[in-house]
Amino acid sequence: MPDSQDNIIGVIGGMGPYAGLDLIEKIFSQTDAHSDQEHLPVALLSYPGLIDDRAQYLFGKSTSNPADAIAGIALQLDRLGAVVAGMPCNTAHAPAIFDRIVQQLEKSGARLRLLNMIDETVDFLANHRPEARRVGIMSTQATYRLRLYSDRLEKAGLGVVLLEDGVHDELVSQSIYDPEYGIKSCSSPVHPVARQNLLAAIGRLAENGAEAIILGCTELPLAVPEAEINGIPLIDPARVLARALILSTYPERLRPIEEAADAA
Amino acid sequence: MPDSQDNIIGVIGGMGPYAGLDLIEKIFSQTDAHSDQEHLPVALLSYPGLIDDRAQYLFGKSTSNPADAIAGIALQLDRLGAVVAGMPCNTAHAPAIFDRIVQQLEKSGARLRLLNMIDETVDFLANHRPEARRVGIMSTQATYRLRLYSDRLEKAGLGVVLLEDGVHDELVSQSIYDPEYGIKSCSSPVHPVARQNLLAAIGRLAENGAEAIILGCTELPLAVPEAEINGIPLIDPARVLARALILSTYPERLRPIEEAADAA
Repeated sequence: MPDSQDNIIGVIGGMGPYAGLDLIEKIFSQTDAHSDQEHLPVALLSYPGLIDDRAQYLFGKSTSNPADAIAGIALQLDRLGAVVAGMPCNTAHAPAIFDRIVQQLEKSGARLRLLNMIDETVDFLANHRPEARRVGIMSTQATYRLRLYSDRLEKAGLGVVLLEDGVHDELVSQSIYDPEYGIKSCSSPVHPVARQNLLAAIGRLAENGAEAIILGCTELPLAVPEAEINGIPLIDPARVLARALILSTYPERLRPIEEAADAA
Repeated sequence: MPDSQDNIIGVIGGMGPYAGLDLIEKIFSQTDAHSDQEHLPVALLSYPGLIDDRAQYLFGKSTSNPADAIAGIALQLDRLGAVVAGMPCNTAHAPAIFDRIVQQLEKSGARLRLLNMIDETVDFLANHRPEARRVGIMSTQATYRLRLYSDRLEKAGLGVVLLEDGVHDELVSQSIYDPEYGIKSCSSPVHPVARQNLLAAIGRLAENGAEAIILGCTELPLAVPEAEINGIPLIDPARVLARALILSTYPERLRPIEEAADAA
């Protein structure tokens, strides 16, 4: 056995704390491993108290850019021996935050490469779902308003299918945040109202021409875990990010897409 | 916001990888937190490839003591700022491994204190279930044979209730390891045969006088998540360890036992 570990996968957690665990679970479940020892080396730093609210900053309610704290955590992962890292939080991928983290890593001479979950998701669509030319998006309202997925999809030459504001709010945002039936309040099991409204949103996006749908909020796959519904692939960015982290470090250990979906 | 994190909770993962996530989930779910920022700082190092099989060493099939690799990981957690750490693996608590880790930490002048999950479990019983004077144990065969819980319970003046070898093997070990219905092969959902056999084992322990039962293997609470069955408390050592880690760092944030059980 070696006495120190290299080629480590880093996870910047705490945004929120459970999303960090979810990403690691998706790394483990998509790894071809037949014993404890065959699982991949992962380091998680989950320090939520250091990281200010991302949406507050992006919508001008705070002047403190959480990028600085996130870059500090990424540098600690770099010093631990992580060569690549992921950050399971859509809002932290807004260019005003993400680009500043990357700049600070470069300035510090870090070897660690921070993957971009949104880029990885759009690349995954292009490589594995090339038949989907029009892509629907479900997310928090912040991700919708910031056009985090929309802009990247359009840059990749793909069509974007959105729900009208009122409908998105009622069917998607409420399914995430409602204190009675929202997934944040009630996730095991998910409340049937949340599931039913999200299925209705998927139906609306399909009617509007979506040929694949991005579940752009870490809570959504808890309520709609299916790989596809009525033939329309549902794309979970955290699962895609987990695959990209494995591919960057131990590509020979990545399970095929279908097999990994069955195990989930 | 502070720009570095102290008073970190460390988790030595990888034994197995999912048990590390499970411990962290139990820290989060027992923390009184109303926003991402209120959750506690946790660092997980899950490097399973560095840590040789614990049972192989303890039963003389290998001469390499995994304590050295585990101590190396604990020292990395110490350098990250962790003041306390937990290790969600029963077998690694055998004195031949655990005591050597602690010696190496002391020799290196580490500030980090490694909690002992088995001691914490027995202390929890004494403090919170004082009416239970005879305690049943369900675990892997290795933990049974090594008497990890039995010896500590007896030292604390408590009676130990065990199943006969053949019965323990059929009802408990098989429910963990059977390739068809065991929890390691089949956990979401757990196979009804595993659940039914474990309930039968609980019944047998109760008949033999157990007034509380320790679920001394990280897989067991997946199949019997109840806090008690027929009035007999079921004790999950990983949940107890999570409580002890919170108590050692942020005691004011620990949720009361009953409330935390409802949320689980």
